[in-house]
Amino acid sequence: MKNKITINLSERSYDILIGKDIIDEISHFLVIKKYSKIFVITDKNVAKLHLKNLEKVLFNFDLIEVESGERSKSFENFSNLCDQVLKKGIDRKSLIIAFGGGVIGDLAGFVASVVLRGVDFIQIPTTLLACVDSSVGGKTAINSRYGKNLIGSFYQPKLVICDLNFLTTLPYREFKAGYAEILKYGLIYDIDFFNFLDHNYQKILLKEHDLLQKSIYQSCLIKSAIVSKDEKENGERALLNFGHSFAHIFETETNYSGEILHGEAVALGMAMAIKMSLNLGLINHDLYQKVIAHLNKCGFIINPNKIRSNWHKENLIQHIYKDKKNENNKLTFILLESIGKAVIKKNVDINDFLKILNEFIEN
Amino acid sequence: MKNKITINLSERSYDILIGKDIIDEISHFLVIKKYSKIFVITDKNVAKLHLKNLEKVLFNFDLIEVESGERSKSFENFSNLCDQVLKKGIDRKSLIIAFGGGVIGDLAGFVASVVLRGVDFIQIPTTLLACVDSSVGGKTAINSRYGKNLIGSFYQPKLVICDLNFLTTLPYREFKAGYAEILKYGLIYDIDFFNFLDHNYQKILLKEHDLLQKSIYQSCLIKSAIVSKDEKENGERALLNFGHSFAHIFETETNYSGEILHGEAVALGMAMAIKMSLNLGLINHDLYQKVIAHLNKCGFIINPNKIRSNWHKENLIQHIYKDKKNENNKLTFILLESIGKAVIKKNVDINDFLKILNEFIEN
Repeated sequence: MKNKITINLSERSYDILIGKDIIDEISHFLVIKKYSKIFVITDKNVAKLHLKNLEKVLFNFDLIEVESGERSKSFENFSNLCDQVLKKGIDRKSLIIAFGGGVIGDLAGFVASVVLRGVDFIQIPTTLLACVDSSVGGKTAINSRYGKNLIGSFYQPKLVICDLNFLTTLPYREFKAGYAEILKYGLIYDIDFFNFLDHNYQKILLKEHDLLQKSIYQSCLIKSAIVSKDEKENGERALLNFGHSFAHIFETETNYSGEILHGEAVALGMAMAIKMSLNLGLINHDLYQKVIAHLNKCGFIINPNKIRSNWHKENLIQHIYKDKKNENNKLTFILLESIGKAVIKKNVDINDFLKILNEFIEN
Repeated sequence: MKNKITINLSERSYDILIGKDIIDEISHFLVIKKYSKIFVITDKNVAKLHLKNLEKVLFNFDLIEVESGERSKSFENFSNLCDQVLKKGIDRKSLIIAFGGGVIGDLAGFVASVVLRGVDFIQIPTTLLACVDSSVGGKTAINSRYGKNLIGSFYQPKLVICDLNFLTTLPYREFKAGYAEILKYGLIYDIDFFNFLDHNYQKILLKEHDLLQKSIYQSCLIKSAIVSKDEKENGERALLNFGHSFAHIFETETNYSGEILHGEAVALGMAMAIKMSLNLGLINHDLYQKVIAHLNKCGFIINPNKIRSNWHKENLIQHIYKDKKNENNKLTFILLESIGKAVIKKNVDINDFLKILNEFIEN
């Protein structure tokens, strides 16, 4: 069975298709569109594992491979990719396909949004994280030396195909990291979905097909509901950043090296955000315990000292000031009021942040 | 007297203000907006001549200077500017002001469109070309080694202030180059405006204030009418590229060195486009003569051999294939059907292009 979600953004609307063995859906789309040229941007790891599946349904395309990993979202790669597609003769009727995880989606999406001031692009995510997060909602970005995702655009794809087949080869660590974003949707928006996850997380983490598809579908539904209301993140969309302000300081400090994966950082960040919600009196201790228990049951590391024994707290504090959400040096965090209801908390005192940091980091 | 034009693009609407001594209009705007930080991006030449005028009305800003000239629209400058504003702590409530000619507007506008996925920006054009063309309509861009303006975005400013004071120091050659774009609006859209220009060109080229302001106002009106109907250049907006496909091949071949200014290239390009219109039977010889006579009276060089004695025709032919408007290797040109009425001509035979090239270039 195939799920379809339509993201409603007037003339920029598009479909997300979710299911197993649905990669040939791209053929139906291409027959209608008649692109002059197709470019597939992927990473070397995905190409090795899955390119043969794409080649079964796509007959004529230019392939561009980049190295795997967050470091590929650099200015240098961005300018190289722009030059490469221009050199190969991209025109305004061309299509760029992002075939890979979140790094590829962000990078190829940004290239698509600015080459010739924008050409069509399609997302074919190959990681759980990309299926439920980065391929939905139209945010593209590269990293700057001053932080993650600081240069980018809001640019919607024309189609997203989440084929669960690609997830079968995903290592358990990466798969579980993607689950952190699924959990996030339950926490910020939908208590029934959280309860579903709390009941079924073991089977989902074992990639049990029907439960996994349902989880991806529900995650995309929630994200699309939020994004349709607030495409450019002037308000409610910021709720999707639950746990992310905390997550980014650890990712920045480890220089996106893979020492902590994005989803792992988000799990840790959600634990810290929930603790801040407790400290600030937004939630009670039972609710706090329930969420922390779920994170522990899933095996997420929510003690930063188990990742690295000595963090430089001063650096972590510096990183929080660079967060895009912060204006005029006032801190903003996404916190919980209950399971299923997140709020944007502005003007948080730096001491409340420092307290959390001291509670989580022992040195 | 001050003119005001409102560009209607729903939530992206903005005003263009045109007049003499109107730079203090920015104060009124800033009082309402309350930006957290203001960055002024300018070139060294403009800074030397006009920064003191801006400092009279703007009290607290970060200044970033780049070298003057088209070569500043490079990947390198783009990434440097992004890094500089990030280093200086830009946030989502910050403002970027593009203070200069078309190069600064294109470059600073592109930076504003992608830093933190978009911050507000204001255009204060200091050249005639920027007043009537690049500061209106929201196209931003940098150049690639494969051609001009190939990387960029559609991104609208929040305000444009054309203060004629800044034009007083503009060298005659640059001023006249800007006039070519004014002439373009008459040719593609408004025969009355063309007749007005044909009658008054001498006084306008001498910067006679009232006639100049009227010319800028009418040019911006025409551009805004076209852009409001077709922001992303899916149709009619392409008419604004009249003369530009030809112009770009000479600019690319001279490597944006200033050997031929953009407006000069457009004047030459319009002469070639008018000749193509004649060759293809769209206009009669009288009309052709009338336009060529106007270009000659203004002193535009419409014989490429007077710019450079030996052009490499093969290179010029290669450059036309890189034009953004061309799809599937079919050539598209903007041609005239009459004065005041341009058309998009698709599927032009390469031989029709070669014929024009041979007529204009003698070697």
